[in-house]
Amino acid sequence: MGKRSGVTAARGFAAGGMSCGVKKTGAKDLAIIMSDRPAVAWGAFTKNSVKGAPVIWSRECLRSAQARAIVVNSGNSNVLTKDGYEHARRMARAVAEKLGVGERQVFVASTGVIGQPLPVEKIETGIAELFPRLSSQGGVDAAEAIMTTDLTPKETSATFDIGGGRVTVGGCAKGSGMIGPSMATMLAFITTDAAVSKTVAKDLTKRACDASFNSITVDGDTSTSDMLILMANAASGAPVIEKPSGKRYSLLLEKTTEVCEYLAKEIVRDGEGATKFVTVNVTGAVSEKAAKQVAMSIAKSPLVKTALFGQDANWGRILCAAGYSGVAVDAYKAKLSISGVPIFSCGALVSDDWEASAAPKLKEKNVEITLDLGVGKASARVWTCDFSYDYVKINADYRT
Amino acid sequence: MGKRSGVTAARGFAAGGMSCGVKKTGAKDLAIIMSDRPAVAWGAFTKNSVKGAPVIWSRECLRSAQARAIVVNSGNSNVLTKDGYEHARRMARAVAEKLGVGERQVFVASTGVIGQPLPVEKIETGIAELFPRLSSQGGVDAAEAIMTTDLTPKETSATFDIGGGRVTVGGCAKGSGMIGPSMATMLAFITTDAAVSKTVAKDLTKRACDASFNSITVDGDTSTSDMLILMANAASGAPVIEKPSGKRYSLLLEKTTEVCEYLAKEIVRDGEGATKFVTVNVTGAVSEKAAKQVAMSIAKSPLVKTALFGQDANWGRILCAAGYSGVAVDAYKAKLSISGVPIFSCGALVSDDWEASAAPKLKEKNVEITLDLGVGKASARVWTCDFSYDYVKINADYRT
Repeated sequence: MGKRSGVTAARGFAAGGMSCGVKKTGAKDLAIIMSDRPAVAWGAFTKNSVKGAPVIWSRECLRSAQARAIVVNSGNSNVLTKDGYEHARRMARAVAEKLGVGERQVFVASTGVIGQPLPVEKIETGIAELFPRLSSQGGVDAAEAIMTTDLTPKETSATFDIGGGRVTVGGCAKGSGMIGPSMATMLAFITTDAAVSKTVAKDLTKRACDASFNSITVDGDTSTSDMLILMANAASGAPVIEKPSGKRYSLLLEKTTEVCEYLAKEIVRDGEGATKFVTVNVTGAVSEKAAKQVAMSIAKSPLVKTALFGQDANWGRILCAAGYSGVAVDAYKAKLSISGVPIFSCGALVSDDWEASAAPKLKEKNVEITLDLGVGKASARVWTCDFSYDYVKINADYRT
Repeated sequence: MGKRSGVTAARGFAAGGMSCGVKKTGAKDLAIIMSDRPAVAWGAFTKNSVKGAPVIWSRECLRSAQARAIVVNSGNSNVLTKDGYEHARRMARAVAEKLGVGERQVFVASTGVIGQPLPVEKIETGIAELFPRLSSQGGVDAAEAIMTTDLTPKETSATFDIGGGRVTVGGCAKGSGMIGPSMATMLAFITTDAAVSKTVAKDLTKRACDASFNSITVDGDTSTSDMLILMANAASGAPVIEKPSGKRYSLLLEKTTEVCEYLAKEIVRDGEGATKFVTVNVTGAVSEKAAKQVAMSIAKSPLVKTALFGQDANWGRILCAAGYSGVAVDAYKAKLSISGVPIFSCGALVSDDWEASAAPKLKEKNVEITLDLGVGKASARVWTCDFSYDYVKINADYRT
């Protein structure tokens, strides 16, 4: 039998996924995630100024005091389509009617090709069929139904004690193409049976997201459709966390961040054509913002990423990418190491045999780049993957 | 017999190129470009905060009232190397001694791998050998000697009448990898026998460069080593242009820009692994800066570039890249066409058969993307290439 996992790990949540005919392949393309009782919700959305209709709809839903469900289709992003907003609303309404709640209590997300008319009737028919089958074991089906070029579904959960109550946070996400550094960079849905105020939901969403999904990049492109939705339904019976401070909040934030970080890393591991999982640490910066800017510049450089694919310790490209990040970098104060092997320090190579030491490290699946700027105490960490032949292939042939 | 071309098209200039042993392949790797009389010079340099020693040296040379030569090696960029500055100086000194002038009259440029010790003795020996062979037919050899992963040497010239004198502007450039949008993005050397003041040389360099080399991108990376040097030696006998205004200056600027634009486009055509030459026009912007920012965002998007390689009219990615450029883009005011075929207008596709019309255009070598933002009157144009399997291959294997 199935088990509670991902978005249905927390009590009071049910979900499901099915194929309703949006994807020509017949793969799952419709997911519903719902709470059996009113939940407090918040979201984070793409900063792209060209936004999909579902992003516009779901942002508006933040104004509602309560939320009950999220409906998602893959295979078509409903971006820049005729009647896109009305179609997003119809998706919400189809779920809301089943639940007997207002349509503004249902978030909508879509992912896939841009600019193709959304086959909304197929989705409506699918919703009618899927709704009665939603269950507490349906998390994994939902995680599968939101995939596009992803190779694996991504879900996880964490359970812990908080103020005497047993609380669970779970989630699922999809990523793969178009993973850029500006929130949101994918679809992610987080559910928890913790009890929180709206103020706490807002803070929790922003902070967990910044430390996870906003710290990854696959190709630097920021999609028109990305969003993260967090729903908290209080089904655990644990006491309400009213303010974003204190021990109980800290624990909830820590665990929610862990869930988000796991999902974000899974997105990178499953990056289009990725053969490496790369952690970029920047330390010794004047501010966290500067550290992240340098780290992202390194993580996004096509020359760094192709060198990583080639298992080549081309450290000059790393310093070069740091240099054009917009942050002033002094190579005579900087220190660079790759997977623990010191390479470069304050203007010069640390040794003559650095390459022999670094070579075996670059053959490993996980590579860690650490750049100490030597000018301050702030740091940042981002995750990325390499750039392979397959990245080009997947994206050249995406629509065919 | 040879002919005057490129940097030796203008009177009073001689040049040459040879192999001095920096490149393991035995290909040409040393070039000298010199004026037989004192010239007025200016330069534009990389904005990367990690700068090669030759960039530091050559920027300092701008303070000299006169310039006589440029010495260039390929195969090693002399960036982040021990004694790099002293080595750059030794290159300048070796040429200056032959000319009997101060070392500050000799610009130095290096291109190639970062962080490897520069074999400066080989270069000094090469300079001694090459100097006596410099000639007015040596432009093409110099253009060859500055190449790295370039497939073809790039040179051109223009001759025209200016205030009664016959004036020539010529130049050579190298590019290929690491072509990013921030000046300078390659090596380019422009020579003219026009007579200009230093003020004019400055303005001419900046304006011609912005309209050409600063309007191209191959992979968005900005090198540590890039520079453009312009030398004007008055050998034409044409009257001196003292101020950056008036008819004669306009003509000189126009022709110099033409030379630079030709070279910049050649760099894009020869971009690593490029199969397409792509012009991105952004019109209807609120400012030229905004237009260029949007155009560069489109031109740099890996998703747009891989779609172009795949000959796929994935117009959604173009609007998506415009959307995350940092400039506010309203898709309901924007119009997009590809190679003259209208695709999208004010929020919707223009027709049902847009794809059939666009498909043959995308099979062509030259593709033109035109995005009208519909909110102003400013425009910008940038040139780029696609992202192919070969781009990844060249850069994964670069150092092997």
